[in-house]
Amino acid sequence: MHMVELIAKKRDGYALTSAELDWLIANYTAQAIPDYQMSAWAMAVVLRGMDAHETTALTLAMARSGTMLDLHDLAPVTVDKHSTGGIGDKTTLLLGPLVAAVGLPMAKMSGRGLGFSGGTVDKLESIPGFRTALSSDEFRRLVREVGLVIAAQSSDLAPADKQLYALRDVTATVASIPLIAASVMSKKLAAGADCIVLDVKYGSGAFMATKAEARQLAQTMVKIGHQAGRRVSAVLSSMQQPLGYAVGNALEVREAIAALRGNGPSDLVELCLSLGSQLLLMAERASDEASARAMLHEALQSGAAWAKFCHMVTSQGGDLASIEQPDLLPSAPVQIALPAPRAGYVSAIAGASLGLAVNALGGGRSHKEERIDPRVGLSLQARIGDQVYLGQPLLTIHAASMSAVEAVVPQLLAAYQFSDTPVKPPALMEVVPGD
Amino acid sequence: MHMVELIAKKRDGYALTSAELDWLIANYTAQAIPDYQMSAWAMAVVLRGMDAHETTALTLAMARSGTMLDLHDLAPVTVDKHSTGGIGDKTTLLLGPLVAAVGLPMAKMSGRGLGFSGGTVDKLESIPGFRTALSSDEFRRLVREVGLVIAAQSSDLAPADKQLYALRDVTATVASIPLIAASVMSKKLAAGADCIVLDVKYGSGAFMATKAEARQLAQTMVKIGHQAGRRVSAVLSSMQQPLGYAVGNALEVREAIAALRGNGPSDLVELCLSLGSQLLLMAERASDEASARAMLHEALQSGAAWAKFCHMVTSQGGDLASIEQPDLLPSAPVQIALPAPRAGYVSAIAGASLGLAVNALGGGRSHKEERIDPRVGLSLQARIGDQVYLGQPLLTIHAASMSAVEAVVPQLLAAYQFSDTPVKPPALMEVVPGD
Repeated sequence: MHMVELIAKKRDGYALTSAELDWLIANYTAQAIPDYQMSAWAMAVVLRGMDAHETTALTLAMARSGTMLDLHDLAPVTVDKHSTGGIGDKTTLLLGPLVAAVGLPMAKMSGRGLGFSGGTVDKLESIPGFRTALSSDEFRRLVREVGLVIAAQSSDLAPADKQLYALRDVTATVASIPLIAASVMSKKLAAGADCIVLDVKYGSGAFMATKAEARQLAQTMVKIGHQAGRRVSAVLSSMQQPLGYAVGNALEVREAIAALRGNGPSDLVELCLSLGSQLLLMAERASDEASARAMLHEALQSGAAWAKFCHMVTSQGGDLASIEQPDLLPSAPVQIALPAPRAGYVSAIAGASLGLAVNALGGGRSHKEERIDPRVGLSLQARIGDQVYLGQPLLTIHAASMSAVEAVVPQLLAAYQFSDTPVKPPALMEVVPGD
Repeated sequence: MHMVELIAKKRDGYALTSAELDWLIANYTAQAIPDYQMSAWAMAVVLRGMDAHETTALTLAMARSGTMLDLHDLAPVTVDKHSTGGIGDKTTLLLGPLVAAVGLPMAKMSGRGLGFSGGTVDKLESIPGFRTALSSDEFRRLVREVGLVIAAQSSDLAPADKQLYALRDVTATVASIPLIAASVMSKKLAAGADCIVLDVKYGSGAFMATKAEARQLAQTMVKIGHQAGRRVSAVLSSMQQPLGYAVGNALEVREAIAALRGNGPSDLVELCLSLGSQLLLMAERASDEASARAMLHEALQSGAAWAKFCHMVTSQGGDLASIEQPDLLPSAPVQIALPAPRAGYVSAIAGASLGLAVNALGGGRSHKEERIDPRVGLSLQARIGDQVYLGQPLLTIHAASMSAVEAVVPQLLAAYQFSDTPVKPPALMEVVPGD
């Protein structure tokens, strides 16, 4: 095979075969295909698309570029979850303990955050002592012993995806539903879970701007999963405003702890019950959604989910006292309220602006090597639909210094819009069935 | 400016501004933009196209990436010619002396051939002693003293085009009319001529497969020339069969010499009269095509064109005896006739197959560093429309050895098609006016 011919085939709108995609990914991973050919192919994919068969073949080729985990010696059924990323998304911190508490082991590898705030492993690292760099043996042992483990993604998990994603990022070839779907699903397939639930977010601050695009991405990923022999379903959830009230690493851990103790924001809890129900249904632990939700609700109310979270934290080296008394978690030295610039009903919150502000405060990364400040972030006091008076706090800025606060105030004020008449809060989510 | 944003702009179908293209080409030439970004942009151009303004801006940016020649201190008007390349295309060897003989200086830089047989400078180097690597001073002196110079393209002529073309060649991004037009015209604009005639070929063995594509390319190039303030016109010429009878370096020089001495194949002579007339009209040396053709015809008949050719050859170090007695030019040790496999009328000749056969005989290059054997090639004895009997020679193979002959016979036989009924020879050309 010749790479130039494969690029030309895609350029002219034809589908590549499984054999061609296997060859392409194997040679790219082996650095036998240069980046300049791969980026030309990626641009041809962005503009010509890929059909369902081709997308699955690419996904499988990327999944097989590294180790494919097999967890069946540890548990008959394991589950996993993926979110396409949003502002204030601490879902995994609540969902993992919930499903593990009802007996479904979750073995999750997670990437670090780029762009806005941190990723799930960054958030967990706010807890003093918490280790996310686990050996393969330790990862497997914790799946068996705790039934819940959240680790940083191993470098041998779908290395082709890592390499291709870095290239797409600098060649304007990210915006392609087949390529995004293949990137997500290659890692999920390699990570070995039998049942996978996908949280596909849309709106400001989400990867997909519109619900229609989010649905197309969800359907593409569900189809890949089925063709690869896994059980997969998806939930479309709105990112028209942040999920819950906290944005920033330690702040989000605190909010997740509150939720696990029965005092969480309703949108976060509702999303976790929906995602968890999908997992229970796919794993055949519940016969219908109502009974699935009841099981999860019981795990929350009884304290079983909270106990599971504590078990995970201690088993991964985290300080139990810091989560039992969240005041002990890192907190920012400067906390300043942002007053509402006018009276009215909050009509829109630009999530992307909030995410960029948290990044500017030091709570996210602009490049891979940057260190995250776990203390900083935002805690919202007003969300879409809320009525506020002039000067009422919209949110609290948690920062390392006053100058850091001053630098983000203008963009935070610009993120809020107001209406003189009442505003209906946005719908939270929609379940896209897995078939 | 950020390259990722410029790639995204083109990916989304928008036109880049002149300032953006200047920045892009300047930074690519300075190696500040990596190949993997440039190839993604090139693929976006292939699939999204470029508008007329953008194409001209790209062309000018590439032309200005190296030295822009100014020949106005040497002659008030200079002319140049470009062919998009075909099989047996020795046009420049006849056209240059013709127009120079009527007083229009031709200052031509020419690339070396890749793919099929050699380029014009490769052909001229069949003449013992002929030098094509000229210094800038020598090039300028010969324009003034001889009025005709044909040199290998200087490395400082549109270096951005050289770099981009090499990248396009390995990333399946050659097939784009705006990119092809910008590549050709950037070199022509940098080479400094006031009047440029373009010979755009179509058919088997030509860069453009169909006449419609050739017309589109011709119109694009003419428009670029006008927007850049040059006089440009184009001729569309058929490559349904080779031009003339000779294919191969020394063989083509011999055919050009015969034509200059009044004994050339009619299609070659006719094409040169057409191209030359365009140049005379653009340079305002003739008021209409009939008088332009009469002037050129007179230069051919009188021996003035032949004298100009001899002057050029001697002034560039070539052996005069070898052109006065072309038997002294290099000739192949093995010359074998290819017999017609059946009786009938020749209905098609696949030029590409003939070109590849000459390449296989050693008369062309597969990569830049390869040396060319000037002796080898094909001399045709039957062309489209000719009636042949079984076993009648279709062509003579000129080769270095019998084994080289045997290797190309199957593809040469397959290149010819026959009909039982008379076949009309194809139309040779069409002039696309320069406005």
